Amino acid sequence: MEPKVGVIMGSSSDWETMKHACDILEELQVPYEKQVVSAHRTPDLMFEYAEGARSRGIQVIIAGAGGAAHLPGMVAAKTTLPVIGVPVQSRALNGLDSLLSIVQMPGGVPVATVAIGKAGATNAGLLAAQILGAFDHDLATKLEARREATKAQVLESTGDLT
Amino acid sequence: MEPKVGVIMGSSSDWETMKHACDILEELQVPYEKQVVSAHRTPDLMFEYAEGARSRGIQVIIAGAGGAAHLPGMVAAKTTLPVIGVPVQSRALNGLDSLLSIVQMPGGVPVATVAIGKAGATNAGLLAAQILGAFDHDLATKLEARREATKAQVLESTGDLT
Amino acid sequence: MEPKVGVIMGSSSDWETMKHACDILEELQVPYEKQVVSAHRTPDLMFEYAEGARSRGIQVIIAGAGGAAHLPGMVAAKTTLPVIGVPVQSRALNGLDSLLSIVQMPGGVPVATVAIGKAGATNAGLLAAQILGAFDHDLATKLEARREATKAQVLESTGDLT
Amino acid sequence: MEPKVGVIMGSSSDWETMKHACDILEELQVPYEKQVVSAHRTPDLMFEYAEGARSRGIQVIIAGAGGAAHLPGMVAAKTTLPVIGVPVQSRALNGLDSLLSIVQMPGGVPVATVAIGKAGATNAGLLAAQILGAFDHDLATKLEARREATKAQVLESTGDLT
Amino acid sequence: MEPKVGVIMGSSSDWETMKHACDILEELQVPYEKQVVSAHRTPDLMFEYAEGARSRGIQVIIAGAGGAAHLPGMVAAKTTLPVIGVPVQSRALNGLDSLLSIVQMPGGVPVATVAIGKAGATNAGLLAAQILGAFDHDLATKLEARREATKAQVLESTGDLT
Amino acid sequence: MEPKVGVIMGSSSDWETMKHACDILEELQVPYEKQVVSAHRTPDLMFEYAEGARSRGIQVIIAGAGGAAHLPGMVAAKTTLPVIGVPVQSRALNGLDSLLSIVQMPGGVPVATVAIGKAGATNAGLLAAQILGAFDHDLATKLEARREATKAQVLESTGDLT
Amino acid sequence: MEPKVGVIMGSSSDWETMKHACDILEELQVPYEKQVVSAHRTPDLMFEYAEGARSRGIQVIIAGAGGAAHLPGMVAAKTTLPVIGVPVQSRALNGLDSLLSIVQMPGGVPVATVAIGKAGATNAGLLAAQILGAFDHDLATKLEARREATKAQVLESTGDLT
Amino acid sequence: MEPKVGVIMGSSSDWETMKHACDILEELQVPYEKQVVSAHRTPDLMFEYAEGARSRGIQVIIAGAGGAAHLPGMVAAKTTLPVIGVPVQSRALNGLDSLLSIVQMPGGVPVATVAIGKAGATNAGLLAAQILGAFDHDLATKLEARREATKAQVLESTGDLT
Repeated sequence: MEPKVGVIMGSSSDWETMKHACDILEELQVPYEKQVVSAHRTPDLMFEYAEGARSRGIQVIIAGAGGAAHLPGMVAAKTTLPVIGVPVQSRALNGLDSLLSIVQMPGGVPVATVAIGKAGATNAGLLAAQILGAFDHDLATKLEARREATKAQVLESTGDLT
Repeated sequence: MEPKVGVIMGSSSDWETMKHACDILEELQVPYEKQVVSAHRTPDLMFEYAEGARSRGIQVIIAGAGGAAHLPGMVAAKTTLPVIGVPVQSRALNGLDSLLSIVQMPGGVPVATVAIGKAGATNAGLLAAQILGAFDHDLATKLEARREATKAQVLESTGDLT
Repeated sequence: MEPKVGVIMGSSSDWETMKHACDILEELQVPYEKQVVSAHRTPDLMFEYAEGARSRGIQVIIAGAGGAAHLPGMVAAKTTLPVIGVPVQSRALNGLDSLLSIVQMPGGVPVATVAIGKAGATNAGLLAAQILGAFDHDLATKLEARREATKAQVLESTGDLT
Repeated sequence: MEPKVGVIMGSSSDWETMKHACDILEELQVPYEKQVVSAHRTPDLMFEYAEGARSRGIQVIIAGAGGAAHLPGMVAAKTTLPVIGVPVQSRALNGLDSLLSIVQMPGGVPVATVAIGKAGATNAGLLAAQILGAFDHDLATKLEARREATKAQVLESTGDLT
Repeated sequence: MEPKVGVIMGSSSDWETMKHACDILEELQVPYEKQVVSAHRTPDLMFEYAEGARSRGIQVIIAGAGGAAHLPGMVAAKTTLPVIGVPVQSRALNGLDSLLSIVQMPGGVPVATVAIGKAGATNAGLLAAQILGAFDHDLATKLEARREATKAQVLESTGDLT
Repeated sequence: MEPKVGVIMGSSSDWETMKHACDILEELQVPYEKQVVSAHRTPDLMFEYAEGARSRGIQVIIAGAGGAAHLPGMVAAKTTLPVIGVPVQSRALNGLDSLLSIVQMPGGVPVATVAIGKAGATNAGLLAAQILGAFDHDLATKLEARREATKAQVLESTGDLT
Repeated sequence: MEPKVGVIMGSSSDWETMKHACDILEELQVPYEKQVVSAHRTPDLMFEYAEGARSRGIQVIIAGAGGAAHLPGMVAAKTTLPVIGVPVQSRALNGLDSLLSIVQMPGGVPVATVAIGKAGATNAGLLAAQILGAFDHDLATKLEARREATKAQVLESTGDLT
Repeated sequence: MEPKVGVIMGSSSDWETMKHACDILEELQVPYEKQVVSAHRTPDLMFEYAEGARSRGIQVIIAGAGGAAHLPGMVAAKTTLPVIGVPVQSRALNGLDSLLSIVQMPGGVPVATVAIGKAGATNAGLLAAQILGAFDHDLATKLEARREATKAQVLESTGDLT
């Protein structure tokens, strides 16, 4: 099936984080593609990717990067598709630099920013699905079912408090 | 027309920030509604709002709050619609508390977080439009036109550097 | 005996921190109950818990959570019992996000916040006992005795400086 | 009536913040006393105050201080009554120093910390009332009524979004 | 004379800061050009500017931006000329976001970062001159003379301590 | 010989840090004493220690503590001897809380604060010696000799850059 | 009388802060000198000042600076007299940069750091006096009297809480 | 060949970081020298080094240091050659102190600051080469080739996302 979500990241070392976004998309059977696209090392590829995404059928882009994380914001500057930014945890500043570099976008070019690290990547996958699910009844139903399953797990987990 | 975007905020004092989201929605002719809904002072109303939003035709929720800003995350916990969180600038910590309270959501319940303050509210309006525009060709065209207009403004503004 | 203190936490992974609150309550023979209640994954349970606590005889609630830690503040929004919030140490930001999400509550809905992590959980147990002890002579006496014992330990510990 | 709540602060310049705690206590008709007690300039007075509070009938102490804010923690070290700490907003670091100096207490001596500045002082008054209200049905009823009134204000305030 | 230094900034509102870089270049008679080039609003212009700079005779680029400040790093990704980044003071986070977004570049693409705000802009002008001065004896002499003049000002200023 | 420097710390777990202060004092043959004195667990002992120090011949006090580190400031409130504060590295916030709790003292009661952790403890020992050395020619000579030895080590260490 | 305390600062603009140190020294009749000495603009003067201070009879140096505040640490590197560092409040980062640049000295070269801004400058004057007072009975007596006067002011100030 | 770049660092323990700058210079065949030069332990050597660098043919200085990192700024105060500062990651504050101590220089004395730690050291080497390359066609060509090689690596790395 044609991918609806494009998952990109600045380096293959970000995969350990970003795979959690892909895991969610697979779980929910949302077709996606994944690629390393670096803002600083492959800037032209980044622009081509962003410019061509809509015409290739992509509806949401997920971009993960760390440190001076320019990938999500620069992709957002080259497309009017919704772009979700995942701040990858950085070595020295624990991802605070990644978070601020992604979220503090100037008025005009939004990036939908999620939490630092693994939880953020998971939520990027879910947010992409929720965006698609706003227009797709079946996907919305799957998301609701996933919420119910999560709730059930919490209810059972009180038994672990020993 | 039925509202497609719901704009809520924790206090009427957040309106000075959040009106920038509404300005964008008006500019782009996206039907929306606005309401004060407080996580801490009207928790039941918040849950009702979130639970009923999808069936009322809302496709994206924008929620702004400051300090221990729980509104976006709690609304997100009660709906699988995409929720955009706007960190309102707080008095003592300049919105860093608002930002972290909104963006650092645990895996399972995403909030699409934008920048602190006015720029973030503007971008929340645009992000909502971009989400709708992923499924609406006319709106996407308007968003592209807006980008072009913005570009033209930048090109002219070099003349102001005196 | 009927529990007087309710200890809740957002995830069973918080137990490693929150058990230190329960240890104190056991040591001081304060009857308590414990449960996993997640603001984001079981929001309705959270509201039921908070609404029903007073009528079940609970006099103090201790709530621990990490990251965008909404549990203590949302429970506080649904009860006028005193709520103690424990910021659980988070992975990326070391609990600074948890602390600010819990402590920076708007005027109207207080959360009695303690330190990040284990020391905070221990102190949550003690603070709950001190609240009860303001109205219970025996418990106050136990708390004073505990302080004396702690003092004695300090006095002896100079011998360890080698 | 004998005061049940003692409101102290490190300097008369903290009064602009701390009066909001007293306003709440007056509104709820909780008898209280207020005094300037400085950890660094009147350390002996501070110890006397803390040591004598319980026997004078005080059941909760509210202590506000800024910067290296030692007053709440040192009072807490000299009494087993519940102590609520209010971080007063400081000049250079906006109260982050006050907050960390108050909340990061070691295991053994808790301080119930509230938000920085005015909202925190308001909540200190409410938290004191909630602690008393856990054992006082009338006060609990007043607190519930106050919540209802606050809710009504929120519901009306949507009209101000213009 | 052909410009040797290109001074660019993300918005005409950055001019109040960036003019201090231009003042230094004028004082030292270093030929320069200035232009508004926005990473997010004119991404293609930014790439063209960076790609063409060396062949137009530019030897150093100074780029100023605030918030999620992507301009310096993205220009640096498209040229191997030295790029100096000036973090413009932002509204909410006082330029800490600007600083981290500029300085925390990944290995491979350096940005020579200076201080936040006016002092940084002044130093960007001086650093550009020092880079040119490493290969230009006359300019180096001017820079030394400027240092001497500054020293003399300091020596006199003790008289102002009254 | 009568101790001239008193080294105190809030807990025996601080010894791993504070022993570096004692090592310096031994190296320079400055007579000192060491003791665990906790602001929160032994407040009366702390006051007695501070009040009696001068009459026992102590000329400088070194106090180390972590988290809401009140020991140095409270000792300083009870003596007019110079008090050196060592911020011990804390678990969650890496000693930033310790640093701010010690250094941000209000006007009237100074604490001579040094760096977080081991380097700070070493420097506390040296600073105490430098204070004594301002009035003791022999000690000043030892300190100068130590500096010379350190310089020699640096000069040799270039050989290690391989 | 020969100055015993040298008060230096990086710029005459620091005088507004540093005069509070001089006010204390005048109040306590401690002879002092004051001078602008800039680490970055008059580095040689700084070294001469530091090297010659002891032989000129100076016993304590107070050095104030802001931003990348190198003056206190570099003076401390060139003398074994005690050096007190005052972090002057900076424009963008409110003195957090000044504080860290002064306090985080490596093992071997201590700087006695005080609070950011006016309170810190006041305390620098007091700390210098306390260091001298450790060896000067009359000065110690004056310092004790000052503390008593301060205490009296606090006791009276409760009357201002209205 | 005569060194064109001088690489200095405050301690041999910084070598683990700073060797990445030297690796780049070797890779690009830029002649360089390396030395331990400590601002605090060998201040006179530091001044001699900075003063003599230009006449020895050095065109760029790279200086790495951690904590209260004064080396880059003080070297910059003694030369008008371009100075690149590398913030070495510190133990307690992860290099945030190093970064602010290096980057927040006052107007008049610039330091070209790069990222904290290894990435920064790598970029310091590249930035030095880019400065030289602005006047050296062959070196500029090597730098362009290095960029191309890096791009190729990124393009291949998508294959690793499994």
